[in-house]
Amino acid sequence: MSFEYLTNVPLYKAKEDYIEFLTKKGFTHEAETIPVFEAAGRITAEAIYAHICAPHYAASAMDGVAVNAKDTFGATETTPKVLPQDKYIVVDTGDPIPDGCDAVIMVEDIVKTEDGCITIHESASPWQHIRQIGEDICAGEMILPSFMPVSPSAIGAMIAGGVLEISVIRKPVVGIIPTGDEIIPPCTDPKEGDILEFNASIFSSMVKNWGADAKIYPIVPDKFDEIRDMVKKASEECDMVILNAGSSAGREDYSVSVIRQLGEVLYHGIAMKPGKPAILGCVGSVPVLGVPGYPVSGIIVVEELLKPIIEKWLKVSADERIYEKATLTRPVVSGLKYEEFVRVRMGYVGGKLMASPLSRGSGVVSSFMKADGILEISQETEGYEAGKEVTVRLLSKKEKLENTLVVIGSHDPLLDELADMMHIDNNDIYMSSSHVGSMGGIMAIRRGEAHAAGCHLLDTVTGEYNISFMKKYFPAGGAKLIRCVGRQQGLMVAKDNPLGITKFADIKNEGVRYVNRQKGSGTRILADYLCEKEGIEQSEIYGYDREELTHTSVAAQIASGSADAGMGIYSAAKLYDLDFIPICIEEYDLIIPDHAWDSPMVKQLIETLKSDTFKEKILSMGGYTIENAGEEIIIK
Amino acid sequence: MSFEYLTNVPLYKAKEDYIEFLTKKGFTHEAETIPVFEAAGRITAEAIYAHICAPHYAASAMDGVAVNAKDTFGATETTPKVLPQDKYIVVDTGDPIPDGCDAVIMVEDIVKTEDGCITIHESASPWQHIRQIGEDICAGEMILPSFMPVSPSAIGAMIAGGVLEISVIRKPVVGIIPTGDEIIPPCTDPKEGDILEFNASIFSSMVKNWGADAKIYPIVPDKFDEIRDMVKKASEECDMVILNAGSSAGREDYSVSVIRQLGEVLYHGIAMKPGKPAILGCVGSVPVLGVPGYPVSGIIVVEELLKPIIEKWLKVSADERIYEKATLTRPVVSGLKYEEFVRVRMGYVGGKLMASPLSRGSGVVSSFMKADGILEISQETEGYEAGKEVTVRLLSKKEKLENTLVVIGSHDPLLDELADMMHIDNNDIYMSSSHVGSMGGIMAIRRGEAHAAGCHLLDTVTGEYNISFMKKYFPAGGAKLIRCVGRQQGLMVAKDNPLGITKFADIKNEGVRYVNRQKGSGTRILADYLCEKEGIEQSEIYGYDREELTHTSVAAQIASGSADAGMGIYSAAKLYDLDFIPICIEEYDLIIPDHAWDSPMVKQLIETLKSDTFKEKILSMGGYTIENAGEEIIIK
Repeated sequence: MSFEYLTNVPLYKAKEDYIEFLTKKGFTHEAETIPVFEAAGRITAEAIYAHICAPHYAASAMDGVAVNAKDTFGATETTPKVLPQDKYIVVDTGDPIPDGCDAVIMVEDIVKTEDGCITIHESASPWQHIRQIGEDICAGEMILPSFMPVSPSAIGAMIAGGVLEISVIRKPVVGIIPTGDEIIPPCTDPKEGDILEFNASIFSSMVKNWGADAKIYPIVPDKFDEIRDMVKKASEECDMVILNAGSSAGREDYSVSVIRQLGEVLYHGIAMKPGKPAILGCVGSVPVLGVPGYPVSGIIVVEELLKPIIEKWLKVSADERIYEKATLTRPVVSGLKYEEFVRVRMGYVGGKLMASPLSRGSGVVSSFMKADGILEISQETEGYEAGKEVTVRLLSKKEKLENTLVVIGSHDPLLDELADMMHIDNNDIYMSSSHVGSMGGIMAIRRGEAHAAGCHLLDTVTGEYNISFMKKYFPAGGAKLIRCVGRQQGLMVAKDNPLGITKFADIKNEGVRYVNRQKGSGTRILADYLCEKEGIEQSEIYGYDREELTHTSVAAQIASGSADAGMGIYSAAKLYDLDFIPICIEEYDLIIPDHAWDSPMVKQLIETLKSDTFKEKILSMGGYTIENAGEEIIIK
Repeated sequence: MSFEYLTNVPLYKAKEDYIEFLTKKGFTHEAETIPVFEAAGRITAEAIYAHICAPHYAASAMDGVAVNAKDTFGATETTPKVLPQDKYIVVDTGDPIPDGCDAVIMVEDIVKTEDGCITIHESASPWQHIRQIGEDICAGEMILPSFMPVSPSAIGAMIAGGVLEISVIRKPVVGIIPTGDEIIPPCTDPKEGDILEFNASIFSSMVKNWGADAKIYPIVPDKFDEIRDMVKKASEECDMVILNAGSSAGREDYSVSVIRQLGEVLYHGIAMKPGKPAILGCVGSVPVLGVPGYPVSGIIVVEELLKPIIEKWLKVSADERIYEKATLTRPVVSGLKYEEFVRVRMGYVGGKLMASPLSRGSGVVSSFMKADGILEISQETEGYEAGKEVTVRLLSKKEKLENTLVVIGSHDPLLDELADMMHIDNNDIYMSSSHVGSMGGIMAIRRGEAHAAGCHLLDTVTGEYNISFMKKYFPAGGAKLIRCVGRQQGLMVAKDNPLGITKFADIKNEGVRYVNRQKGSGTRILADYLCEKEGIEQSEIYGYDREELTHTSVAAQIASGSADAGMGIYSAAKLYDLDFIPICIEEYDLIIPDHAWDSPMVKQLIETLKSDTFKEKILSMGGYTIENAGEEIIIK
């Protein structure tokens, strides 16, 4: 199979042209009438006028007496006037002004006499202390113009104005059609080769956030006729359609042909990455968007190309995108053929906003979930070097970034538990952790990119962990070493150890497929050291070049049968019910730069490390020892 | 009736103490389990871990052939290797890696021979071009910590990780109890003395915006036992309760006694305005908030005191309040007894953000609807002078304020129609108009506070409108006069003219109650001029001091029978089906300062003024002539 992109149109032009194209096809909003009580957040479809005045009667604005002002004329301090009982009526605030009265005198300003008369020392001016009809809203007055969002107070104003039903813009319905032979509905036990359908759930949540409704259609197999029939049905039932290809190549051929047969295709192929194979088409006046199957590509295409159409329907301005300057921690390379969207994690370290590029695999949905921002690299730019100040579009709030503890370094599942406990203890504090190994963590601290780094580096000469590395990489100080946990390292092997592995050297045995950690990780350094100690050539070990980034992913490979052995910690082996051959207990500590020491995030970190809850959790995970966690290790 | 406030506690302290008080009473969130598909925007109640790996099988990352890497070892450019048919399997992207294979060679890198063998020129390294198990998410990995909002991409990650149900924080249910003998459910024909209930609809929309649910109870009359029973019921059925007093004084006595009888009252009376009579109490662990009846007071109390409790339940940080510096157009006076919240309209004029205080009547719900910001005046501050730079909390988006045409000056209902048409023509453009009369408009333009001012000022010497005033107030230029409409001024009187008024002088007749416009308005200046011309003393006219701010509200007084005559324009009389005695046709034009001339708002204004749609609308309103609207009037 093969497919050709007919176009490589720049994104901004694709957006503009698509709106113009759709408008010519007759694409526009529809209205509906709803009770005003349900109108919050909706958009008016026409101007709304008050039916009655609010207040709708002249009301007393004070507790006191209502009078005819003329009866009071002439009253002064020296020549008070007495009003008999039939010349005044007692009123409370909010009471209607009785017929024949046109002024209110406050209760404080009258003197009651025993015979029921009142004495006043000042004349009342007509309409004093009276809340006039229409003081708030007059009948016939425009309460809201067309195409305006309805706020809670506007609902109050409309009810006050006697408006109980209003015409609003109907929420557009976005039909979402998942396709693909291998795509199956979400479940917990997919078979090999099955791909779980989750794009539709992502897209439907996105469009609902933007004020639309979503309708998810059943998964359609890769058959032209069936796809065509479903697109036809959806374009009749919905206001916009997302046709979501599967993840295998060539699928888009069906989409573009289907849309061409039923309607028209404006562009197939946008100069953007991810998202290049997008199709902008229509059936009648209904926009039909062909969206690539990889979730990250899909998210970006829907955000960039469907959101403006929903906004066009709803007559709302696009949300302002918030951009901030940030320092790039790693280089990013980009092609000149397209505009590129790179997801980054972000955090303020030492007062500077840092941006670390995340995995660019467009199949990795978790990278989108973790992203705090998007670095938009224009088509003319070939990328940026590390350390470069770039402008990033924020996905997370700046406030959140200011309260995020940035942890870069060695991986341990306890970091996620720490993140959880810190956020439970203080809902305003967050953690973001990146796994780049112990050496990567030291470098990140040195470059000022992190508040903390997990580290477990063995000095093979002294047998000590971490301390000599602190001396070497922070010779002038500037960072503290904080005790965290002792943890059991060893070889993870399949349940019941079918290959009979009993010691490290066994990993070079015939038939053993090893899975390694990445270079620079403490566990890799340990494995390299053990090879040397045992006199094993790395090339003797099958799979020694196969690298995973976490203990958990090493365990996952072994559990699935795609590898037979790998170095890792006991808690990962336990999680996957693997057998474990202990090798050593190592110290996993945290390096914290002095400049971060007084931040609320680090204070919370230390507090949580010292807590009993943390200790209990860690011990329940297995393979850990914990003593004096959160204390500084004094380096002499 | 009377009531005493027991406390005058500062707002910040009331907030802090209330949360602490409630926490001690056992106030906390509850969780519920929901399908992950419905979880967007909800908050996790516990950490969520993946059940399966994503991908859950090793998959080909390319179209090509799967092989056992060992079979390829040794292949080079010069010594290619041939693999027979049983040593490779064709795979597409996404296909599972067949048993016995551990590498994929791209289709581009193989040469097929006729007998079905393939030739390769490079050895494959184990696991090349294979998407590893768990590349995205590993089983057992934490996908989301506790108390985190669920984003669309997190929903994708959870489904990919085999998580189909999650525990989220249940939305708290806010019970809303309206009380008051005179309060009636919303309707379009209230009787005199009836007060339409709309606070509950406002509060319910507000709390829904903040992530809660609302339950509105039936209106309870002012009877202690009935209020008590309803509060008891609501505190059993809901997680928080708003007890909304009616608008008449003394009502709060019931509220505070009811809460005291059922539970406890922490504070009654907060040092804030509006909102002073708020009651902070509880029944068991359920917060019960006594909220004043005036809508503006109620809105502020619910925002300041209930929102933090909802956030506490939901474990979310408060939305960041956005503050901007702005120039105050009018002085604001505030007491030292309380913190004050003054609603302001805002707009950028000549690059400066201006803030104009709105009506401070706490019964005026439309003022909240129109507010773009809130000026928070601390208890220590007695107020600010006009021209002072103050810090205002924004309610409208800055973007909207930048695109708002600020019109200050003479009132005409056509301004609302213009606002509507401009926004329909360009959804990004808004208008805010304030009615301060023609002279007020000229002054606002001179002070740089407005982009346009409606003006209809008669030079009684020349008989010309507006031009001589332009010469007088803009002697050096700096503003243009733009033709708008001719409009019919006259006397509005009740339908069928029961008092037989036929000319202006008749308003001094015995039994005629006049209603006037405010000083500085063109219509008032006209009335004053007519008095002088006819030799009438203003004091001879009953009600000449009674001032309304718009033509519409003058008409509303006459239509309701609370006045007999008033000067105004024909379209207002027509709107209220009043009789009309024509007096003159005047020119209503717009003054636009030169600095605003090139702004998109003024460009749109001129375009809309010149449009046929505007002309048609204006003529349909009656009493207008329109010719060359939008053209500049050249002043010689």
